[in-house]
Amino acid sequence: MKMKKIVVIGGGTGSYTVLRGLKKFPLAITAVVSMFDSGGSSGQLRDEFGVLPPGDVRRCLVALSDGEREAVLRDLFNYRFEKGSFLGHNFGNIFLTAIADILGDQAEAIKKAGELLNINGRVFPVSLTDAHLHATLENGQEIVGETNIDVPKHDGGLRIKKVFLKPSAVLYKEAKKAILEADAVIIGPGDLYTSIIPNLLVKGMGDALRKSRAKKIYVANLMTKYGETNGYVASDFVSELLKYSGLKKFDAVICNSAKIPPSYVKKYEKENKQPLVIDKNLKKYTKKIIRRPLFKDARVIRHDSDELAAIILKEI
Amino acid sequence: MKMKKIVVIGGGTGSYTVLRGLKKFPLAITAVVSMFDSGGSSGQLRDEFGVLPPGDVRRCLVALSDGEREAVLRDLFNYRFEKGSFLGHNFGNIFLTAIADILGDQAEAIKKAGELLNINGRVFPVSLTDAHLHATLENGQEIVGETNIDVPKHDGGLRIKKVFLKPSAVLYKEAKKAILEADAVIIGPGDLYTSIIPNLLVKGMGDALRKSRAKKIYVANLMTKYGETNGYVASDFVSELLKYSGLKKFDAVICNSAKIPPSYVKKYEKENKQPLVIDKNLKKYTKKIIRRPLFKDARVIRHDSDELAAIILKEI
Repeated sequence: MKMKKIVVIGGGTGSYTVLRGLKKFPLAITAVVSMFDSGGSSGQLRDEFGVLPPGDVRRCLVALSDGEREAVLRDLFNYRFEKGSFLGHNFGNIFLTAIADILGDQAEAIKKAGELLNINGRVFPVSLTDAHLHATLENGQEIVGETNIDVPKHDGGLRIKKVFLKPSAVLYKEAKKAILEADAVIIGPGDLYTSIIPNLLVKGMGDALRKSRAKKIYVANLMTKYGETNGYVASDFVSELLKYSGLKKFDAVICNSAKIPPSYVKKYEKENKQPLVIDKNLKKYTKKIIRRPLFKDARVIRHDSDELAAIILKEI
Repeated sequence: MKMKKIVVIGGGTGSYTVLRGLKKFPLAITAVVSMFDSGGSSGQLRDEFGVLPPGDVRRCLVALSDGEREAVLRDLFNYRFEKGSFLGHNFGNIFLTAIADILGDQAEAIKKAGELLNINGRVFPVSLTDAHLHATLENGQEIVGETNIDVPKHDGGLRIKKVFLKPSAVLYKEAKKAILEADAVIIGPGDLYTSIIPNLLVKGMGDALRKSRAKKIYVANLMTKYGETNGYVASDFVSELLKYSGLKKFDAVICNSAKIPPSYVKKYEKENKQPLVIDKNLKKYTKKIIRRPLFKDARVIRHDSDELAAIILKEI
């Protein structure tokens, strides 16, 4: 039997969670990763070296990495300098920056890093275009740069009307090929406008998703996020994804059915985050809604990798 | 037949040259490396992170590294940042610093890096003591720190009367074991007072060398060095080594017999460096003097790794 081909589109910790679970199964996994971060260690390296921001790629590489010999390298990739000239910098980001500078080719650099980390799968940048994320708010204000949208310096209560890339970015050809050949495409979880939709803004992505015969599955977030999705219900997330991708419907949306413990709700309320409400409208946007308890450990409200992988495997 | 055990004592580019040649042969190689650098990237990391300076270890790791898969990592280890916050820093040094911080054990960190680089042999710090090199000049002046001796800020025409470590450093136990079990110990080439003798200053080193039944072979430098060995002839180098090690004689001293091209002599004269003169006194300090042309490429006056390895192999 041929291995199923699965593409995970996203960035940040969301993709990390999905990939960590999926890598344990005999699947041909491709992570397609947003490349438009502008804050933190990633953003600084981007500014100083003219490389694409390495942070999300790094997380996906670590998620897919396997083997005893690679354990140290995985630890290194997650290591953050706490002092000295490198304060706040992540070692994996420095690694990817240096390797890109040596090879003069960022896609090749990611491939080489993947070999060193012995990854079970492939990691592709969604685009090699050096573009920045912009957002237009409901009051007309334009916000420039992923980090300024992600951690709002503006009135985070305002809705985002539109996000776009400047200059327009082109889908990386290997990522396109992977999507066209996939049996399933998993989108999310992750910050809607700063991690997930940026991938859909890339020229060629909507087309590839529509042409691909892969099942399109969205993994919904557990919580809303201040400055991005305050007050959003599940159908708001999904209708935005359909709008930006040009897809008509998802094949499945995976939602959490477990109750977020009240202590957490309280804690998150301070950050203006609410548990995501799965509303009735959702069924208009997807052929299937899968509700399962998605976190096991009530101390950390995060998707459980193994649980998520098991659910996804049943669907593909 | 059991593999011959060979220990290379030194640091910097000298050990790199020896190791690169030796690693091609079926030998059990151990590099014992000086850990008292205080300048450049190494020195800065030492100051900021309280780690031992990683520069010389890095060079030895790269010299012994093998394999196709490791090629990128070797390139990375040699990579120097040319811009941004890491300007002047060497990637390999950052790597070794981060890994030491993660493992909380510098010897273990070097071992892990060696595994990742798939090295043919072992690299041991000569000592884990955080000590600095001091020099007393012939006028009584005391110079503190390897970098200030290596690139003299004082009158480089003055002779070095004595070098010592502060605080006194202890021989790393694995290095001691390797020396005691060795069939041959190769010392040099390299800067006499800043790369080679610092190893001999470590408590336990002289004792280990004297007890070891290994053949002790010194590879003489091609040139003298301003601020360290101006005016030194071969016997001056060797008698200093005997003095600091407590050895009575070397088993062999390997010297260059090829004429340094006049164009080079001229160029080096500007830096107050002269071709090393092999004087008659030398035979007092060694059982055997081996004279061979040690550089092949007249464009770069450096020991030829393969030539040197071939000569060493004949002696052990």
